[in-house]
Amino acid sequence: MQKLDNVSVQRVENIRLSDDETSIIIIDQTLLPNETKHISLNTAAELHEAIASLKIRGAPAIGIFAAYALYILALQHKNDDYQSFLLEIKQKSAYLGAARPTAVNLTKQLGRIEKLVESLAGSSKKTILDAMRNEADSIQREDIAMCLSISEHGLSLIRDGFGIMTYCNAGPLATSRYGTGLGPILLARERGISLNVYCCETRPLLQGARLTTFELNSAGIDCTLICDNMASSVMSDGKIDAVFVGCDRIARNGDIANKIGTSGVAILAKHYGIPFYVCCPSSTIDHDCATGADIEIELRSPDEIKELYFEKPVAPADVKCYNPAFDITASNLITAIITEKGIHRAPYDFSL
Amino acid sequence: MQKLDNVSVQRVENIRLSDDETSIIIIDQTLLPNETKHISLNTAAELHEAIASLKIRGAPAIGIFAAYALYILALQHKNDDYQSFLLEIKQKSAYLGAARPTAVNLTKQLGRIEKLVESLAGSSKKTILDAMRNEADSIQREDIAMCLSISEHGLSLIRDGFGIMTYCNAGPLATSRYGTGLGPILLARERGISLNVYCCETRPLLQGARLTTFELNSAGIDCTLICDNMASSVMSDGKIDAVFVGCDRIARNGDIANKIGTSGVAILAKHYGIPFYVCCPSSTIDHDCATGADIEIELRSPDEIKELYFEKPVAPADVKCYNPAFDITASNLITAIITEKGIHRAPYDFSL
Repeated sequence: MQKLDNVSVQRVENIRLSDDETSIIIIDQTLLPNETKHISLNTAAELHEAIASLKIRGAPAIGIFAAYALYILALQHKNDDYQSFLLEIKQKSAYLGAARPTAVNLTKQLGRIEKLVESLAGSSKKTILDAMRNEADSIQREDIAMCLSISEHGLSLIRDGFGIMTYCNAGPLATSRYGTGLGPILLARERGISLNVYCCETRPLLQGARLTTFELNSAGIDCTLICDNMASSVMSDGKIDAVFVGCDRIARNGDIANKIGTSGVAILAKHYGIPFYVCCPSSTIDHDCATGADIEIELRSPDEIKELYFEKPVAPADVKCYNPAFDITASNLITAIITEKGIHRAPYDFSL
Repeated sequence: MQKLDNVSVQRVENIRLSDDETSIIIIDQTLLPNETKHISLNTAAELHEAIASLKIRGAPAIGIFAAYALYILALQHKNDDYQSFLLEIKQKSAYLGAARPTAVNLTKQLGRIEKLVESLAGSSKKTILDAMRNEADSIQREDIAMCLSISEHGLSLIRDGFGIMTYCNAGPLATSRYGTGLGPILLARERGISLNVYCCETRPLLQGARLTTFELNSAGIDCTLICDNMASSVMSDGKIDAVFVGCDRIARNGDIANKIGTSGVAILAKHYGIPFYVCCPSSTIDHDCATGADIEIELRSPDEIKELYFEKPVAPADVKCYNPAFDITASNLITAIITEKGIHRAPYDFSL
């Protein structure tokens, strides 16, 4: 895994190989901000579970993680026969991919490694393994360059003294280095631009409270935590000049899937006349989805709403919960979509 | 305190005098839904704290509670001199009223008792005390009649099979008997009308999760708990035919102050073309407020966002929080305001 060179924004190294290269070491993001615990993973079950339980999360980070995970699992395959090796890769890739069905970047990067292995039929096992590792390195290197480019484009929309609202977490923990939705904010800090950032806590998993405030505070950026239902009040008070969010999937027409609640923030921003910006790598575009209606929404456990993080259950045990992990923000609510390629504005057309 | 006669909807008796009439017994609503604990209060400090810490809450319930609280404190005043007694009443009334500055019904009902005492200058202390108790009984009796009338008007806007969204808690725990925002729903249940109710959890104090689902479940009404940031998704899915909320204060132009987040739900409802109804007694109208801008918003402790109810803090200790208890919903977002007097529609004019 390549060494990251120094930049002045403090960041955490959230994905790395162990020194003997037999496992992946990540920060267990479910324990933040109270505990910064590194965990070492090497079995397929552990790697799958880390994605499913959000120990590693954020579209780019999941992609990098999955590429290295497939490499780690390939190392464990003891049969030298190519067909057996390829079958193993495909099975493990499918297993890892099933951990988060909505995260398109996960299956995309897994597919990239699979294709590489297919292209190397006839090569030695060592050659294939080295190529897999190099490909995972490339995925990470590309992500770093991409985040910086997104951050530069995003920063062009920000003025000194802006109040900015963020939602969920799209910072360094979710990517490599700057992040997507948080990238322009972290870059602004490096350039001496002063911002007031309002972080929505993002129920039920509280990524905004646990992760985003942790990252912004670490970087010395003025930030204020609010509950999700305070977004309207803060906007109404004139405290917000722009909203920046990340995104998990983009349909060809510019509809996006992002963390549950994003569409609500977008509707509020439109109501108050505040620009709503979506920052993400162009790999987030799913050319198979014509509109947001084609994007499958993952439903998660009721326990996340009633019990997770709480001292005691906060609702009667027999009360039903509805817990969608994502929602669809219609493209007509989005002021611009910012990728590493530039600033895209309506009418969106992400056909190939 | 009068006996409540039977109605078929199950409810909890949330305010009553002890048998010796020296204290008030309430359900500590901060412990629901895990514990239904009755607490007995009789000192000024305890009575004030119960209001401030939301052990008793909901505009009508606070008004009833405060009227009985002033009676309990008057009983404790041992000086028979009328001027001394009146001064004591005024001081205790100011002290109780300061516990929730935004709750207009609190100061209104306290003022009603004060005026009564003023009108009885020259009467015996026993006469005044009896009159205070009768007045508190009247306030409760009027509230019961008012809630039923609000519920009847609200029910006229509901059809069998409706999906209804509620916000915060405006049910029997917040009033006497049916409640305001929840009144039409509970009355629908009595009349055999089938509804699917979605309850927003209402961060940070989780009144929707802890109290509303408790009340609806107790009454046998189909209800589903969602996080506040899921409201847009549920509306977008076509699951909601109407939103019903309570309200803490109404300005003359129809702007309302209600639990933080209400304005966001109203904006979403307007976006999705869903009617947004506000249910409250006409005593909620504050004729001194021309618009919502005249309503003072109470700011509460950051600990409610970062720590309350959680096993561990959910954000770094040094992160700032902004925690307004209420927000202002502009009258142009409100389809109708339903009081005991009927259904009011725009343009609103609550001038005397």
